[in-house]
Amino acid sequence: MDPRIHDHAATLVDWSARIGAGDDVVLVVSETAHDLGVAVAEQLGERNANVVTLYASAELERAYLRAHDGEFDEDPQFELALYEHADSVLFLGGGPNSSETADVPGEKRQGQSTAKQGVREARMDTDWVSTVHPTRAMAQEAGMSYEAYQSFVYDAILRDWEALAEEMAQLKEVLDAGSKVRIRNEGTDLTMFIDGRTAVNSAASVAYDSHNLPSGEVFTAPYDTAGYVTFDVPQTVHGTRVRDVKLTFKDGVVVDFEAAQGQTVIEEILETDGGSRQLGELGIGMNRGIDRVTNNLLFDEKMGGTVHLALGRAYDANLPEGETGNESAVHVDLITDMRGESTLEVDDEVVQRNGTFRWEDGFEA
Amino acid sequence: MDPRIHDHAATLVDWSARIGAGDDVVLVVSETAHDLGVAVAEQLGERNANVVTLYASAELERAYLRAHDGEFDEDPQFELALYEHADSVLFLGGGPNSSETADVPGEKRQGQSTAKQGVREARMDTDWVSTVHPTRAMAQEAGMSYEAYQSFVYDAILRDWEALAEEMAQLKEVLDAGSKVRIRNEGTDLTMFIDGRTAVNSAASVAYDSHNLPSGEVFTAPYDTAGYVTFDVPQTVHGTRVRDVKLTFKDGVVVDFEAAQGQTVIEEILETDGGSRQLGELGIGMNRGIDRVTNNLLFDEKMGGTVHLALGRAYDANLPEGETGNESAVHVDLITDMRGESTLEVDDEVVQRNGTFRWEDGFEA
Repeated sequence: MDPRIHDHAATLVDWSARIGAGDDVVLVVSETAHDLGVAVAEQLGERNANVVTLYASAELERAYLRAHDGEFDEDPQFELALYEHADSVLFLGGGPNSSETADVPGEKRQGQSTAKQGVREARMDTDWVSTVHPTRAMAQEAGMSYEAYQSFVYDAILRDWEALAEEMAQLKEVLDAGSKVRIRNEGTDLTMFIDGRTAVNSAASVAYDSHNLPSGEVFTAPYDTAGYVTFDVPQTVHGTRVRDVKLTFKDGVVVDFEAAQGQTVIEEILETDGGSRQLGELGIGMNRGIDRVTNNLLFDEKMGGTVHLALGRAYDANLPEGETGNESAVHVDLITDMRGESTLEVDDEVVQRNGTFRWEDGFEA
Repeated sequence: MDPRIHDHAATLVDWSARIGAGDDVVLVVSETAHDLGVAVAEQLGERNANVVTLYASAELERAYLRAHDGEFDEDPQFELALYEHADSVLFLGGGPNSSETADVPGEKRQGQSTAKQGVREARMDTDWVSTVHPTRAMAQEAGMSYEAYQSFVYDAILRDWEALAEEMAQLKEVLDAGSKVRIRNEGTDLTMFIDGRTAVNSAASVAYDSHNLPSGEVFTAPYDTAGYVTFDVPQTVHGTRVRDVKLTFKDGVVVDFEAAQGQTVIEEILETDGGSRQLGELGIGMNRGIDRVTNNLLFDEKMGGTVHLALGRAYDANLPEGETGNESAVHVDLITDMRGESTLEVDDEVVQRNGTFRWEDGFEA
C-alpha cells in the first residue's frame, strides 16, 4: 500500500478525530475509498476502538431516491440510534463520478434531507471528521493526472498540523483583538467589522472544533461590510461555473453585482432571503500544501494566500454566546487570490501583503 | 445492467425478505457486490423502505482484527441499537479473495464473535436474508469461467420459488408423517429415526423461516442412526479438502470413520464434544437449478438429487417446543450424491430413486 495512505489514516484517527480505546466509531467508506478504509480500519484496531462500517455510494443513493415516491419517513429509529450512540463518524469521501446524482430530482434530495434532520443532528453531535481519498474523478475535475492529483491531495493533508495550528493561532489572536478588516486586491477594496466576534482556528481536528481534513483556515463572522470585492478564483457554485464575480456592499448589504460567468446563479443566491445579501464568513486560507485551484471547495478555500467570503449564514462558533449572526438558508463561499498585489489589514496594520503573512519569510514590511 | 441482477434483487426483496413500506432495512454490501447493491437499493426505494447501508470487506476486517489486541468490548451499544431497531438485514456476499482472512489468528475472530453475541442475536432476530453476488473469486473456487459461473448462480437463484415451495411441501409432509428414514447409495446403507420431529421447508424466504437465497432443501433432525454412509461430494471443511468420508454409526453414534482425504479434520470434528459424533441434521437438496458441485456449501448442499447429513448441533425448528435435540459446538454438513444407483425410503416406501423424487418425471416405481 502507498505509505501516504497509511499516513493519511493515522493523521485522521490521531490528529483529527482523537480516537481512543473503546470509542464507538462509524466509519463511512465511499465507493472508491476502499484502500483508505483498510488503512483506517487498521488504525482503529490498533486503538481498540469499536467500528461499524457504512458504505457511501452515489450510485446506490441515486437508484434508491429515483425509485422512492418522495414521502420519506422521519428519522428512522435504527439509523438515529446508530448515530446517537456513536462517539465519532469518519467519512472517507470518494466516488467514481462526481455527477452521479445529476438526474436525481432536487425535491427528493430535499425531502429526504428534511425528513432526516434528526439523524443529521445526531451525526453532527459526534466528533465527526470528513476527508477524501483521491480519485480519478477528482483528478479529472481538477484537470490533473491521477498521480499529480494524489501528490496534491497528500501535500494538503500530510501537514505538520501542530505547527500550522500554532501559526493559525497568531492570526486568530490578531482577529480576536481587532475591530476593522480591510482587504485590497485587484478589483477589491473592502472594509468590514469583526468587533466582538471570535475567530476559529480551523486546524483539521475536533480538538479545534474543525471537522475537515484537510483544513487550514482561520475564519470569523464580519458585519457592516462596505466597498467592492472581485472573486477571481473560478468556482462551481450549485453546479454552475462562475468566474470573476464582483460584489459592491453598502451598510453590510450587496447593492450591486456582476459576473463574467454565472451571473444567474449569483442572482438566485442573492435573492434567496434577507441574509443572502450579507456576509456570514470571512475566511483566510493558510494551508501552504494547497498551491493551486482544483475546483473542489474543500481544498480551494484553504489555499494559503487566498481569502474567501461567504454570502449567507454565519457560524455560531464566531458569535458571542446566545447571539445570532447573519441568518440565511444559504452559505456560499467565494474566493479571491491574494498572491498578486494585495494587502490584508486589521485596524490599519498590514497582516498579509501579496499573499505573505507578516510572520512569514519574504514579507515586505 | 445485466437484467439477471435486477431479477435477483427483486427476488431477494419480494420473495425472500418480504420488504414493505416503512421497513427499516440494513443492507450489507460486500466489496464486490456493488452492482447487486445498486439493484437492491432501487427495489428498496420502490417499496419506500428505509435503508442503512453497511460495507462488508474482508480486507478491512483483516486489518482491524490483526491490529486489535484481542480484548473486545462487549456488544457496542451503537451497533446493537442499529440491529435492535431494524426489521430486516440483507447481506449481499461477495469479495475478491475468499482466503483474505487466512492470516487472522483464530482466537481474535473467536474473541470478537464471543464479545458480540448480543449483536449477532439482535441481527438473527430480524428478517435477515443472506445471498451472494457472483464473483470471479467464487468462479475460481468452483473451477469455472466467470460467465459460466454467473449462469450457474442465477440458475440457482432465479427459480419459480412458489412452485418449488409447493414441491418441497410434499416432502415435508412425508417426513412429518414418517418415522424411519433409510438411505441406500454406493457405500451407504443408513437408517435413522425422525418420529416427533418437524421438517423445515427451506424455500429461501423468511415466510418459511428460511434465510438463504438460494435455498431449496427440506431438513429435519434425525436420531438413533445406524449403518454406514459415504460422502462422495468433495468439500472444504474448516479450510481443509475432504473426500470420500465414510462414517459408521451404532445406536446413533459414530463408531468408526475413514476418509480418502482430510482424515485429520474429520477426526478433530468427531472429537469436539459429546454431540459431534451424532447427527444434527438430515437435509435433502431439491434445487434443480444447482446441477454441479462448486465447492460452496450454500449451493452444494441444496443441489437437487443430493442428501446431506450434519455432524453436531440440531436446529430448534426441527424439535418439539421446549425440547433440545443433539447439542454440540459444531455443525458440519457432509454431502452424498444420490444421482447414481440409490434409494431414499421413508417407512419402507421409496420417496426418491436414483436422485428422482416419486412425483417427478422419470421416477421408476
